[in-house]
Amino acid sequence: MTLSMLSGEPEVITVGADVLGEALDAQAVARVRVDWRPPMPGTEADLARVLADPRRVRANETAVGRLVAARPQLVSVRPAHEVLDLPEGTFLHAGPPIEWERASGPMRGALIGAMLLEGLASDPEEAEERLASGRARFDSCHHHRTVGPMAGVVTPSMWMFEVRDAEHGGTAYCSLNEGLGKVLRYGAYGPEVLERLRWMAEVLGPVLHATLKRSGPLDLRSLAAQALQMGDELHNRNRAATSLMVRELAPDVVEAAPGHAAEVLRFVNGNDHFFLNAGMAACKVSTDAARDVPGSTMVVAMARNGTDFGIQVSGLGDRWFTGPAGVPDGLYLGAYGPEDANPDIGDSTITETAGLGGFAMAAAPAIVRFVGGNVSDATAATRSMYEITLAEHPAYQIPGLDFRGTPVGVDVTLVARTGLLPTVNTGIAGRVAGTGQVGAGLVSPPASAFTSALAALAKAADHEHPVT
Amino acid sequence: MTLSMLSGEPEVITVGADVLGEALDAQAVARVRVDWRPPMPGTEADLARVLADPRRVRANETAVGRLVAARPQLVSVRPAHEVLDLPEGTFLHAGPPIEWERASGPMRGALIGAMLLEGLASDPEEAEERLASGRARFDSCHHHRTVGPMAGVVTPSMWMFEVRDAEHGGTAYCSLNEGLGKVLRYGAYGPEVLERLRWMAEVLGPVLHATLKRSGPLDLRSLAAQALQMGDELHNRNRAATSLMVRELAPDVVEAAPGHAAEVLRFVNGNDHFFLNAGMAACKVSTDAARDVPGSTMVVAMARNGTDFGIQVSGLGDRWFTGPAGVPDGLYLGAYGPEDANPDIGDSTITETAGLGGFAMAAAPAIVRFVGGNVSDATAATRSMYEITLAEHPAYQIPGLDFRGTPVGVDVTLVARTGLLPTVNTGIAGRVAGTGQVGAGLVSPPASAFTSALAALAKAADHEHPVT
Repeated sequence: MTLSMLSGEPEVITVGADVLGEALDAQAVARVRVDWRPPMPGTEADLARVLADPRRVRANETAVGRLVAARPQLVSVRPAHEVLDLPEGTFLHAGPPIEWERASGPMRGALIGAMLLEGLASDPEEAEERLASGRARFDSCHHHRTVGPMAGVVTPSMWMFEVRDAEHGGTAYCSLNEGLGKVLRYGAYGPEVLERLRWMAEVLGPVLHATLKRSGPLDLRSLAAQALQMGDELHNRNRAATSLMVRELAPDVVEAAPGHAAEVLRFVNGNDHFFLNAGMAACKVSTDAARDVPGSTMVVAMARNGTDFGIQVSGLGDRWFTGPAGVPDGLYLGAYGPEDANPDIGDSTITETAGLGGFAMAAAPAIVRFVGGNVSDATAATRSMYEITLAEHPAYQIPGLDFRGTPVGVDVTLVARTGLLPTVNTGIAGRVAGTGQVGAGLVSPPASAFTSALAALAKAADHEHPVT
Repeated sequence: MTLSMLSGEPEVITVGADVLGEALDAQAVARVRVDWRPPMPGTEADLARVLADPRRVRANETAVGRLVAARPQLVSVRPAHEVLDLPEGTFLHAGPPIEWERASGPMRGALIGAMLLEGLASDPEEAEERLASGRARFDSCHHHRTVGPMAGVVTPSMWMFEVRDAEHGGTAYCSLNEGLGKVLRYGAYGPEVLERLRWMAEVLGPVLHATLKRSGPLDLRSLAAQALQMGDELHNRNRAATSLMVRELAPDVVEAAPGHAAEVLRFVNGNDHFFLNAGMAACKVSTDAARDVPGSTMVVAMARNGTDFGIQVSGLGDRWFTGPAGVPDGLYLGAYGPEDANPDIGDSTITETAGLGGFAMAAAPAIVRFVGGNVSDATAATRSMYEITLAEHPAYQIPGLDFRGTPVGVDVTLVARTGLLPTVNTGIAGRVAGTGQVGAGLVSPPASAFTSALAALAKAADHEHPVT
């Protein structure tokens, strides 16, 4: 070998910092450039352990295979108390579990609104007192096959999208989208917020229930695939999906509820994000299909409660790995600025977990008008996500990348090895309870969520296959 | 000057064929590359004459300024006999005027269908006999502030989109889209075609009339701008625009016609091209606003009757400049192939005339699945159209080109100077009457339409400002 190096032309491979490589270019020496980044600091030993786990490759194939094979269908809209076994005085919320003391402004505001909506307190002060003293209970949506945008608070009287996975048989739920402005999910709880929620429980929910009974299941996989070809990324841009959904359901709305059809159609049309919640339930039922594959290092949930950002990993059951939620970098509405922003909040990162949202921004160039940056940033965001994911989605394609599938299935080992964190795009809540939305932008999860998940994977691998 | 050429480094500008330029590159000589193509053969004298017309620059600014300032609004849907002053036994058709003898298969088929629909013949043979003998009259849609897709045949009993330009006050009309499959506009005239047209006159038209009376005008400029951000180019891809239109009008459909709402919404939802006809009328009213500017070399109509491709120019009144219609190059449905294709037909090239369709394909990467080619072809098509147009549309923006406006306002002198012809994307009709659609693809107008328009512009310039 040494001989051939001396006799032939040398072949140079360059890796990492580009200074040496550029020196070769200047001397017109041909080189093969390898993209390489150092792994996250301190992860070398855990990485080596997890990469050596003989179950890993096969387990990840199974997990991501199940994720991309899921066929989510909207089958019904039903009340939470009927489908979620939520006792009176129990609420769900977004993100990993949290106590009242550590809850952020919008999370507190939404829980206060929940108490008022359910008639468990007569004013915000009483609601807060009962919540702080532990006389109301709350738990993570994710523990109940449910996701919720922003504060993600679900109460027993709310009606929920019910999404079934026709491939694997799972079911997931998400509340109905309230629209824009002062809304519970952003922590507002004024009279107009509660009045709208009551109308949604009395009219919108029952009408959609009757509509779906007439129309039969709505194929959300096909609808999402079409919306990606129409400029949505399905987290912060849902205009196409909402339009397609309205168009598909409108005739059945008319026949199911002639007296309420115009009112319901006007409400849905008033909000380009109406599809988001159905889409989130579709992502939840798809990622749930990929849970509990022993040895898999694939992320099956990313969620934020406004204080912590947490992830769950297929091979590690229901454990949460958390770090501090960051403040998104983006565009602000009106006179609001970064000082008004709450840290990252909501279960809507289930879209990124399933290969949409920030991972699909190349399909949605117009999103940059909402979250900031320019079109090439949106394309670059998607391209970089291929480096930390296990597959390209067979149904969710990006026309602008010549119909390449979206990057899907975040692998904890790829994140640790590259140091690249998932790109999340998100709405920004005001940090003071009751403010509402103040902007939209991009945010990264904390690296510590991934490094602690990696450590747990290393420990599990050791337990399963001890190094002798 | 000679001195400085000898003393300093030479600056090299390369133009045209690239062989010399590449030789300079090989010698590492810096050069400035100028894109240049020879003008169309035989146009040099006319070009020189027209480019010297002192009215031209200002006239084109006026013409294209009016085109892009137009604010088309859908104000009503009304019967053709009420709005178009069409006497019984008179029909309109697409493209420049044509006689029965020279009419192609689909044009003849549609005219036969028109006779049957209006009860002017009892069978196709009788219809054909009356049409051939001149006992039925037909004229170009464009002569009646009207456009029609494919054969574009309009009869007195058809209901029409009525579009008003809120900026300049003009009005334009287009028939309602029949849907896909066997339809009159592709030359089919079987019983199911006529039955559908009768239902459209008895139910669809009146319901849409009542709907628009309730809803008020629908802003088509805003709707088209949104659809371009959702992957439509608004000639052969209208899925987003149709969805937005349905979504906007659905509540008023319900309130205006509760008994027919579900049926009408299902019909519209069944056809992603439903918006096309309203969009065509919007383009027609916009280009009509740019007509009759003395000295302007801007194209205000491109239209095909299945035999001839014709253009009209702002500075040349209602004269048509024609050449033979080409056969589109594209993708065929089922077992059909190029031998089944009729030459190019329809007024839908009004979309390209107004800066949409083939000119806006960079906004619609998914269109390549329908018309052929790949995504970079679609982007290249749009980019090349900037070379023959006078402006970039201020409202119609392309997200994938960082929100650059679509190329708009084809200039006859730029076409002649560059030899670049407008890119048109189009449905392909079967050449045998009654076949229907056989495919979709791309086509160019005949160069002779532009060279004869240029000659007429030269003559007009001479007449106005004789060279002394």
